[in-house]
Amino acid sequence: MEMWLKEMQIDGAAMTYKVKETLVRKKTQYQDLAIVDTDVFGRMLVLDGIVQTTIKDEFVYHEMISHIPLFTHPNPKKVLVVGGGDGGAIREILKHPSVEKAVLCEIDGDVIDECKKYLPEISCALDDPRCEIFVGDGIQYVKEHKNEFDVIIVDSTDPFSIAEGLFGGNFYKDIYNALTEDGIFIAQTETPFYLPDTVKKVHNDAKAIFPITKLFMAAIPTYPGGYWSFTIGSKKYDPTEVDTTKIPEIDTKYYTREIHKACFVLPRYIQELVK
Amino acid sequence: MEMWLKEMQIDGAAMTYKVKETLVRKKTQYQDLAIVDTDVFGRMLVLDGIVQTTIKDEFVYHEMISHIPLFTHPNPKKVLVVGGGDGGAIREILKHPSVEKAVLCEIDGDVIDECKKYLPEISCALDDPRCEIFVGDGIQYVKEHKNEFDVIIVDSTDPFSIAEGLFGGNFYKDIYNALTEDGIFIAQTETPFYLPDTVKKVHNDAKAIFPITKLFMAAIPTYPGGYWSFTIGSKKYDPTEVDTTKIPEIDTKYYTREIHKACFVLPRYIQELVK
Repeated sequence: MEMWLKEMQIDGAAMTYKVKETLVRKKTQYQDLAIVDTDVFGRMLVLDGIVQTTIKDEFVYHEMISHIPLFTHPNPKKVLVVGGGDGGAIREILKHPSVEKAVLCEIDGDVIDECKKYLPEISCALDDPRCEIFVGDGIQYVKEHKNEFDVIIVDSTDPFSIAEGLFGGNFYKDIYNALTEDGIFIAQTETPFYLPDTVKKVHNDAKAIFPITKLFMAAIPTYPGGYWSFTIGSKKYDPTEVDTTKIPEIDTKYYTREIHKACFVLPRYIQELVK
Repeated sequence: MEMWLKEMQIDGAAMTYKVKETLVRKKTQYQDLAIVDTDVFGRMLVLDGIVQTTIKDEFVYHEMISHIPLFTHPNPKKVLVVGGGDGGAIREILKHPSVEKAVLCEIDGDVIDECKKYLPEISCALDDPRCEIFVGDGIQYVKEHKNEFDVIIVDSTDPFSIAEGLFGGNFYKDIYNALTEDGIFIAQTETPFYLPDTVKKVHNDAKAIFPITKLFMAAIPTYPGGYWSFTIGSKKYDPTEVDTTKIPEIDTKYYTREIHKACFVLPRYIQELVK
């Protein structure tokens, strides 16, 4: 018997993965959670049928969503991750010696628990003493904190269902207020090939609030289209103006000093979405 | 009834596309050829079950395989395309006013004929008077021409079956000889995520022959992994040393002057394959 996971990437195109074993499958309070072991990408977290992260290619997403903002800020001490219950962003954030505290605010406690159990390579830093875990609504959490975080990372699911409120102007205003006076915000913002309107809207929403707004791209095999956008909103520091010669060596598989700038160079069709 | 095309991208992972209509399906002398119309990517050419090019995302591949070498060479007059029967590379090559002749050497005449019929947006330049079409074996053609082409583009299928001989040292030696004294060679060289050994081997083979060998990447949604490598072998001009301020404006959707250099900045895991 062969088991294949079928992931609808967009209406009319689906990716399928041969599954060796289903490690866990449950309805949580918020979503349909599965962790399956696949031939090609190893173990993967699947929420509501959408692949969130895999052992083989998670490094791209987690490195890029973390190191770009953390190496743009000259001295990030306190970082908030909204979503990101797998712990991959926390693992990368805690590679930065300046970071004193990394708060994870994940709405679905089951995601944290199951990733700790079945994806230890990704969730390994969740028990670090500098990591503080808060299970609850990110929108509410951000509203209740002012002038507190140097970097806020929105590591959410797609802008349908539960993460919808994490893509838009009202949330970005609260993020602006939760950041310190030179704080930086970053969010994963979907694929410009399939969802150009989402990329455009998010960019415009961020631009209306932050003095500096930039889009960068990273190549992630298991994400639809293979090419993913991230949007940065910054109060003071421009991620493309960083003196990259001063970036210290760091243990990564995707991010490098040179990638730090090259990832902001956009193909023309993407440039035109955000000009 | 729903028809879905299933493309095995690697053993254990397949992409599937909803098909509106099969426009042509035939066994040619060399391969199983189909052109189908899909919901998400429009019409696509499929050879032996592998998606070769689609109306929606072909621009990335054809622009990058053509403009990187043609804007690296200061005055390309005569260009050879090995493979590339869809005509997409020829279309981009003929955007360069310096080009006097572009030869297409495609082994499978049916590919040319069916692409002319069903993919006119891609094949449109095949009737240009500067384009000369030769239906035959690229390996033989290259062997028989010496010191003739300023740029040779190897726009082949994957290195299994008929294109196998187009990936390797012996062929690259003949290409070296078919190039003029300052000529440039480029080939599509697969995805480093799935086929790291192929990328490495091709790079080493090219490096043993050409004084300058460089790898660059482009994000192509319908290619496995979404992130594709191209290998350049050059006798004189370094594609990363081009004065990009002198590159004239050109009608593209992916390539820009800035992309010309940024595409050579490699993520660490790819850098390590070619160092």
